[in-house]
Amino acid sequence: MGSFSGEILKVATFGESHGVGVGVVVEGVPAGIALEQEAIQAELDRRRPGTSPLASARQEADQVEILSGVAEGRTLGSPIALLVRNVDARSKDYSALADKFRPGHADYTFWRKYGLPPQPGGGRSSGRETVGRVAAGAVARALLAPLGVAIAAYTIQVGPVKATAIDPAFAREHPLRAADPATAQAMVDEVMAARSDGDSVGGVLELAIDGVPAGLGDPVFNKLDARLGGAMFSIGAVKWVEIGDGLAVAARRGSANNDQMDAKGFLSNHAGGILGGISNGMPLVLRLAIKPTPSIAQPQRTQNLDGQAVEISIGGRHDPCLCGRIAPVAEAMAALVLADLWLMQKTQARSEA
Amino acid sequence: MGSFSGEILKVATFGESHGVGVGVVVEGVPAGIALEQEAIQAELDRRRPGTSPLASARQEADQVEILSGVAEGRTLGSPIALLVRNVDARSKDYSALADKFRPGHADYTFWRKYGLPPQPGGGRSSGRETVGRVAAGAVARALLAPLGVAIAAYTIQVGPVKATAIDPAFAREHPLRAADPATAQAMVDEVMAARSDGDSVGGVLELAIDGVPAGLGDPVFNKLDARLGGAMFSIGAVKWVEIGDGLAVAARRGSANNDQMDAKGFLSNHAGGILGGISNGMPLVLRLAIKPTPSIAQPQRTQNLDGQAVEISIGGRHDPCLCGRIAPVAEAMAALVLADLWLMQKTQARSEA
Amino acid sequence: MGSFSGEILKVATFGESHGVGVGVVVEGVPAGIALEQEAIQAELDRRRPGTSPLASARQEADQVEILSGVAEGRTLGSPIALLVRNVDARSKDYSALADKFRPGHADYTFWRKYGLPPQPGGGRSSGRETVGRVAAGAVARALLAPLGVAIAAYTIQVGPVKATAIDPAFAREHPLRAADPATAQAMVDEVMAARSDGDSVGGVLELAIDGVPAGLGDPVFNKLDARLGGAMFSIGAVKWVEIGDGLAVAARRGSANNDQMDAKGFLSNHAGGILGGISNGMPLVLRLAIKPTPSIAQPQRTQNLDGQAVEISIGGRHDPCLCGRIAPVAEAMAALVLADLWLMQKTQARSEA
Amino acid sequence: MGSFSGEILKVATFGESHGVGVGVVVEGVPAGIALEQEAIQAELDRRRPGTSPLASARQEADQVEILSGVAEGRTLGSPIALLVRNVDARSKDYSALADKFRPGHADYTFWRKYGLPPQPGGGRSSGRETVGRVAAGAVARALLAPLGVAIAAYTIQVGPVKATAIDPAFAREHPLRAADPATAQAMVDEVMAARSDGDSVGGVLELAIDGVPAGLGDPVFNKLDARLGGAMFSIGAVKWVEIGDGLAVAARRGSANNDQMDAKGFLSNHAGGILGGISNGMPLVLRLAIKPTPSIAQPQRTQNLDGQAVEISIGGRHDPCLCGRIAPVAEAMAALVLADLWLMQKTQARSEA
Repeated sequence: MGSFSGEILKVATFGESHGVGVGVVVEGVPAGIALEQEAIQAELDRRRPGTSPLASARQEADQVEILSGVAEGRTLGSPIALLVRNVDARSKDYSALADKFRPGHADYTFWRKYGLPPQPGGGRSSGRETVGRVAAGAVARALLAPLGVAIAAYTIQVGPVKATAIDPAFAREHPLRAADPATAQAMVDEVMAARSDGDSVGGVLELAIDGVPAGLGDPVFNKLDARLGGAMFSIGAVKWVEIGDGLAVAARRGSANNDQMDAKGFLSNHAGGILGGISNGMPLVLRLAIKPTPSIAQPQRTQNLDGQAVEISIGGRHDPCLCGRIAPVAEAMAALVLADLWLMQKTQARSEA
Repeated sequence: MGSFSGEILKVATFGESHGVGVGVVVEGVPAGIALEQEAIQAELDRRRPGTSPLASARQEADQVEILSGVAEGRTLGSPIALLVRNVDARSKDYSALADKFRPGHADYTFWRKYGLPPQPGGGRSSGRETVGRVAAGAVARALLAPLGVAIAAYTIQVGPVKATAIDPAFAREHPLRAADPATAQAMVDEVMAARSDGDSVGGVLELAIDGVPAGLGDPVFNKLDARLGGAMFSIGAVKWVEIGDGLAVAARRGSANNDQMDAKGFLSNHAGGILGGISNGMPLVLRLAIKPTPSIAQPQRTQNLDGQAVEISIGGRHDPCLCGRIAPVAEAMAALVLADLWLMQKTQARSEA
Repeated sequence: MGSFSGEILKVATFGESHGVGVGVVVEGVPAGIALEQEAIQAELDRRRPGTSPLASARQEADQVEILSGVAEGRTLGSPIALLVRNVDARSKDYSALADKFRPGHADYTFWRKYGLPPQPGGGRSSGRETVGRVAAGAVARALLAPLGVAIAAYTIQVGPVKATAIDPAFAREHPLRAADPATAQAMVDEVMAARSDGDSVGGVLELAIDGVPAGLGDPVFNKLDARLGGAMFSIGAVKWVEIGDGLAVAARRGSANNDQMDAKGFLSNHAGGILGGISNGMPLVLRLAIKPTPSIAQPQRTQNLDGQAVEISIGGRHDPCLCGRIAPVAEAMAALVLADLWLMQKTQARSEA
Repeated sequence: MGSFSGEILKVATFGESHGVGVGVVVEGVPAGIALEQEAIQAELDRRRPGTSPLASARQEADQVEILSGVAEGRTLGSPIALLVRNVDARSKDYSALADKFRPGHADYTFWRKYGLPPQPGGGRSSGRETVGRVAAGAVARALLAPLGVAIAAYTIQVGPVKATAIDPAFAREHPLRAADPATAQAMVDEVMAARSDGDSVGGVLELAIDGVPAGLGDPVFNKLDARLGGAMFSIGAVKWVEIGDGLAVAARRGSANNDQMDAKGFLSNHAGGILGGISNGMPLVLRLAIKPTPSIAQPQRTQNLDGQAVEISIGGRHDPCLCGRIAPVAEAMAALVLADLWLMQKTQARSEA
């Protein structure tokens, strides 16, 4: 399925990389929520390619059209359909690749699952699908706006370079979303070096979410951890997710790991804002490892559709590091999960006429 | 919700720690699958408490009763309901705690979400709920049996002690599921030391899955990564999940991270068996960080229901390290995800009369 | 699937006619709702067999056990599991039938779908499954209690005998749920005559629901009509459902069929309380046609498992008319649909902190 | 929600009557299914307005654009998004109505549920939404094509005029889908008479479905009856649904109603092709009562937004009888239900590698 199926919100993205366009339908949004086309466009502009030498040169204006569900700046309670047309798809870049599986891509698994040869631009598995998610995330942000929830993703590692401090305002304007002004240039240098080698590089994103009320999530299968963790793993290139102190808890004793309380509240936040699957009112903290872009110019060994060993060298236009492009997608996914659980939470209030 | 909602399989667990019992209903299983009560019992015996000084002393026979969906050793195509009655619940152990939030537990968030005071044994948030999951996992294993899928979880770290080699057969019989005969005793010592200090300790589990056919999973939201990752984060105490090489990809270049192919297949498995959200036929590899058991005897600071700062010291019977107990739960969740996606995959074959 | 999947409420019934027992798990119920075992038992007693010569002689106490989700007369917010054990299953009554498809039953279609031979008592397709629905309906009634919703089903036709007036209080106590004291005895005579002929007879139920607030339902697929209509068609033996004036609208002009309004509200209720798929605050009215019980003693022509033409005569213990038994089931299904939509409606209120 | 949520197929329609357009996203379709734009367009042409004096004069070309999920005449396995732009919306026709609830429409219930004043053209509750359903139905037909399933809806009653014979080929070309050449003109006269009186008229549709394999559907909640019946009640104006012999079963005895068998198969089809919720291989037969179009020119009494009694007379362009327009929608809904259950049935085959 292509859909995010929350408790209340149902989100279906559609579109292939080199098809007519990409978009999304969002169901379950109450009527009367303030939602302007500009707010959706602003989020799309943040993930847009073609804006920096650090990103793909594909030129896409990514102009969103609201097809339904909104009138005069307010939601109607009906499904919200959003469409972005593809403009600068260059399928000819892919014609030479059409019978070879690109390493690190979905080409081989699509062949095995669907019987489809490699699709131009990756088809449905392209990162271009995330246009629909970011647009849906803007709708979710509109739902969360009255709560004062603030969601920020920023890059804390690129290759071997790590951030030593975090400045979310700086990150928001930086093309790599680099969190630390002191190491941002080193991160850029790392990316440019990989690019000039016909290569790519990985990194780590951190996601900080403030203002989440206590009580969101469920005790068992639909833990907030599971909803957020699953959502992050639904983003291509994410191979590792930690919540709160993450891996560090493995080496600890309980006496050091438990978040104790006094009368004012929690004295620490090792848990990253989630206890027993339910938000506890503290900030949420997640980190995601992003694999290096699989599309690289260097020659690589692979198979063709006939199962023969062949060599491949991938041209086209690619991001040499995905962190900056994935940051708004991670924010959008978090917004969807939280907006959904908050709508669900409304049904949990004790029944009364 | 209390349910695992797969594409085809729907699994609803029920039960509280100190209630009548715990159990599960599994829907979507085809008719005619071989399923014996003994196979379910065998899985439950693997997660059973009271079998080692390393685990909780709570004595539960965990005898499963098949209420429906199976007759004469074969599934009927109807919902399979399984029940395990609670026997050795000692609610009085909890009476002194009834107005204090246990640090690291769901007590505080249940209070905020449901308006419920701390429940005996944690109520619904107890690890005892996983009885239902392990029972359902046995059903999923029956579905996967003809495919030859093998799922093994073992402990590769306890506190600071790490495994340096992996022997799944050894791990399967070890009370901590320690993977490495050479460091297993050091792991046990670490747990016993924590216990004698009135404390607990964390660890890391690895999950190795062989025999998964190519083609399971979806390209976007329901990636195999997302299904498995979300399922792992639905297990209490899991704060970190990595797939394949996980965090290590962040520091790498694409040329080193891509799994290249020759005519015989993949030359490496950095991706952990998943490409573009779909299984590629290579072994699946996941790792989970398990937090130290939050219930500890040492005094801790917390709040009571009136919001006052109080001290708490938790008696009762607890596992000083959760790794051994969680291993069969992680296996069960993986089995459910894979069985579900495999059933779903049957609908993807091209239509024909 | 065996489940009712509402917007919020998820209800999974389980159990076969001659298995260990039947039951249900209900998810999505908020915490803190008053719910006593006695209230569930009272509903089950209304559908219980063995209480009248008009019904099956199968003796089932139908004692419900609450396995989870309720403590001290209040819901816990966790899944509510309810179990009724089978006591008086006489599988030997079915041994002579085991290779013949009973006409009008699911035997043939189970064989085609599941590859299963005729199951004792019909297995999963038995009316005994409705024990779980009626128990779940009692939970839904607890949710609706503060709204003052009143749901009553009664028999308005048995064979050729029709009610000419409706007395819901009379119907509630009558073994056939006959609505009209003036024709109730004629209905009973009709049933007894069919019984003594080794035959059975059909009928019509009406469902009247008062106190439903305006606003429940959705404009398109999940119209209140679709939810209620689909729920009624999920009851075995229902072959016809009408809402409001039903079939009569076909012969009318719009000027006669529209429900006009004055300042006090609607001047008529041809629509049966639903406009555009959403409740309008007027009483809901539905009618259901119930087919004659397919199990009859008279000899009938059928096939056996080898596809040969054979004759069958069905002994066992059967209701010669199903109307009285189905009335509480129809009420339960209506309660589930309405409670679910009312919980959903809470998410539609405009978002605010 | 705005979606049809099948077992496998998920269908989300979107769009309002006077908005940018209407459309649909269909998920769950396997890759490799033959699907041409022309086949979808042909179905849309069958429900198109403006083609006869018997229907609304609204001029809509209803040109469908495939946004995703199909390439070179084959499905890709990804979500199929289809868009039809609105062309001839005349919102000014509605400006005089903007504060009055149109009788028989969703205006009042939208006001109560969403807080929205009457929407131009009915907004989301407009019959124009069915464009998306008919387009999705064309996709479902492509799935069913290899099975040889044939679905036909035709009009068997308009006001008091009933068909006395059925000629599906005649009906398919007739603007009212009148089933009987002998009474077709009388049906047309009935509609034209209502129209010239500023009024409208109701009718009855029959739906005949051949070629459905045995085994589709489920024994309990998701009976084929419930899926089809619920789908029909999700069509605006449907107030009554019967399956097989429907209401007639109420007056019968079991000996007359049961479909007996000989070695060749069923000797009758009172059940309309469904036994125990599962298709039995016989033709499916349903009938639907369609209420008279609520939009009429005659003056009617209603309320305005201030709750005052007012008079209303509805101009605009409306179908004086909905039967002909609803016929392709009913066919589309049936196709969706059957295609979904057939995909689901593939998961029920016994598991094997």
